[in-house]
Amino acid sequence: MVRVELIHTGTELLTGARLNVHAQWLSQRLSSLGYGVSRQVAVADEAGAIRAAVAEALGRVRLVLVTGGLGPTSDDRTREEIAGLLGLGLKLDERVLKRLESFYAARGRPMPERARVQALVPAGAVVLENRWGTAPGLAIEVSEELRSAWGRGKAGTFSEGSGWLIMLPGPARELHPMFEEEVMPLLARVMPVEEEWASVTLRTVGLPESQVEREVAGVLEGVAPGVELGTCVHFGQVDVRLSARGPGAHARIRKAEAAVLALLGGAVFGRGGELLEAVVLRLLRERGATLAVAESCTGGCLAHRLTNVPGASEVFWGGWITYSNEAKVKSLGVDASDLAAHGAVSEPVARQMAEGARRAAGSTYALAITGIAGPTGGTAEKPVGTVFVACAGPEGTDVVRRFHPGDRLTFKEVTATFALDLLRRVLMDRGRR
Amino acid sequence: MVRVELIHTGTELLTGARLNVHAQWLSQRLSSLGYGVSRQVAVADEAGAIRAAVAEALGRVRLVLVTGGLGPTSDDRTREEIAGLLGLGLKLDERVLKRLESFYAARGRPMPERARVQALVPAGAVVLENRWGTAPGLAIEVSEELRSAWGRGKAGTFSEGSGWLIMLPGPARELHPMFEEEVMPLLARVMPVEEEWASVTLRTVGLPESQVEREVAGVLEGVAPGVELGTCVHFGQVDVRLSARGPGAHARIRKAEAAVLALLGGAVFGRGGELLEAVVLRLLRERGATLAVAESCTGGCLAHRLTNVPGASEVFWGGWITYSNEAKVKSLGVDASDLAAHGAVSEPVARQMAEGARRAAGSTYALAITGIAGPTGGTAEKPVGTVFVACAGPEGTDVVRRFHPGDRLTFKEVTATFALDLLRRVLMDRGRR
Repeated sequence: MVRVELIHTGTELLTGARLNVHAQWLSQRLSSLGYGVSRQVAVADEAGAIRAAVAEALGRVRLVLVTGGLGPTSDDRTREEIAGLLGLGLKLDERVLKRLESFYAARGRPMPERARVQALVPAGAVVLENRWGTAPGLAIEVSEELRSAWGRGKAGTFSEGSGWLIMLPGPARELHPMFEEEVMPLLARVMPVEEEWASVTLRTVGLPESQVEREVAGVLEGVAPGVELGTCVHFGQVDVRLSARGPGAHARIRKAEAAVLALLGGAVFGRGGELLEAVVLRLLRERGATLAVAESCTGGCLAHRLTNVPGASEVFWGGWITYSNEAKVKSLGVDASDLAAHGAVSEPVARQMAEGARRAAGSTYALAITGIAGPTGGTAEKPVGTVFVACAGPEGTDVVRRFHPGDRLTFKEVTATFALDLLRRVLMDRGRR
Repeated sequence: MVRVELIHTGTELLTGARLNVHAQWLSQRLSSLGYGVSRQVAVADEAGAIRAAVAEALGRVRLVLVTGGLGPTSDDRTREEIAGLLGLGLKLDERVLKRLESFYAARGRPMPERARVQALVPAGAVVLENRWGTAPGLAIEVSEELRSAWGRGKAGTFSEGSGWLIMLPGPARELHPMFEEEVMPLLARVMPVEEEWASVTLRTVGLPESQVEREVAGVLEGVAPGVELGTCVHFGQVDVRLSARGPGAHARIRKAEAAVLALLGGAVFGRGGELLEAVVLRLLRERGATLAVAESCTGGCLAHRLTNVPGASEVFWGGWITYSNEAKVKSLGVDASDLAAHGAVSEPVARQMAEGARRAAGSTYALAITGIAGPTGGTAEKPVGTVFVACAGPEGTDVVRRFHPGDRLTFKEVTATFALDLLRRVLMDRGRR
């Protein structure tokens, strides 16, 4: 396996001012290409910290990706420190400089003098073009000799051969396309994954992680030994990642996937990075149906997730955030006496919200949610986390009572996931008839 | 400065299946207590990887926090590997075992045999009680002798003295309270921050990061030399973090803060971790005012953010997701002929949405948003990223045209931030009269 280490530079990561999303993104991409990320490290924008982290990583593995610190400000030290560490001179690259100048010219701004530093390239480095910003990426081959000097005394962890050090700019809108368009072709050339490998991620909803893990592990043992299983839970969804390496990896993964699908059936809603909301919107589109939502306690979380999907407007009509009782009565026609008799968090109110939304929107389906997000507002009978979810459609209205304990945001997300899944199951049933 | 390194164990981090949110959370908490996080590392649940990362960290710094891998499954290797690395035997702790048994008993479930492993405690370790889950945390003092053996050859980076290794469970709902209730008191006792230090984070909105950084740096140079400045941008907000160490640190930070407030004025909306949405809700509450929203292109993002704040229901009436033109006409009374003449993304439609929402809700204020989130739907005159934001209130209606380029989610978040800030400025003006 080609092992990779990631190094993220940025003082803002170490103070906690910024969340390190690059580690996850790059790890997902690299894993999906068959590389094995063996370590993720974040260090401050400091000369010593950057040099130490890079030397240690190259002393273990043949491929190291560094993000951040290539820009024009005084914090941006990665280029210079790495050139220094590798003993390479920096030289102004005329092609990069021209591109920088035209970047500023296209925006009608003069190029600041300090921006020129971004055109400095270590001797022998491959320039990775940045069409989305100013600082280019850089890739440098590192000799086995230099690597083994750093890896001294780490017997057993040192991967033999020369290595590659790849530097990428920090902004995600530059990093992501550069990885796809510049780094992937380079890796395929200089450090291809030669061993057979395969992996698949099946996304499930509605089952607890412990049950998924136990049952899938049991099935795999029988039909596909040697397939690695990883599960990951997020907001009511459990991802099942199956991976295998070596001869026959593809065949083993196909077998494992079939067994998991047979085991988990309708709980599997997608593969890879597919989102539940995108699946639901696709099913609606396929059936020529439309959707409206009425959210109380989730306060827009469901609509926000639906409208994060490009093209949602084709089937998503819109909806209501009926946070107050008055809004439920005025906008959706919920019966004020039912509100008084059963409370806002009740079966009849959820039902009337969904049916009222469907009627008012003239949509094929409507989802409604009413519950207690907390931290206050719970009672013995309806503790914080209690929620009613309703799905109204041409076949009638389903209302389900659920209990989703957790902090406020977790409650909202898990509840929105449950509502999406309720509609997904209704749509699947309908497709089957 | 007491330097700290964080080690996060979990194969799901290395495959990218899970986002590492603990690194940020712990770094924020530790920084706010005066500790300096100098490295964050993530490694897989593998014996060699865990041992190497821990030994390296203890060879540099006196305080190392490890998260994850303390549970009962076969992936949970942290406890055993660290005991092995430190040469400590594991012994069943009767008190921990009793607590585990009562944890299961309280849930009416028998304790599985494999759960007992969580009661194993390395010789001499301090047990950090976990009242929120099963696996306790563990804290172990590590001698300077052992540390210096691991730090050999790293002159200049080795901090002298004995060290502490603290292990915490992976689930956030256990990690967070345990840090507050168990780790903080322990640190105050065994590794207090003795040097004077101070820091403050001022949160701004509406100014570009480069301008904030340049202007603040210029002002600090004059009035508070030696104060460190860090900026961090997220979705239209720029945080300014000021920090100082050594004698007079508090006085310098007070001076720096006053200078930054004088410079940036109304752009500063809060301090520390205060959210813009919480500030807006507080201002509404103070003025006895209520709010409704009408969202088109942001599709619930604004309402979702407002309702993430506990107690939002006191002032947030609710709103409309008027994603379709029909919804704008039906729910908010937008003039269909204006929609036809000017398009949904226009000044008159934004105005009518806000005024219609305010009227229908009977709220003091209403915010309305209509724009083009992309990736399609743009024109030469109104490219993707164009948006109109309106704020209707007793003083009249403000409508602002903005351009927020970026991916769909960034567009939604930046636009919601802008809308919140528009209302904040209206409320501040009103408070001033």
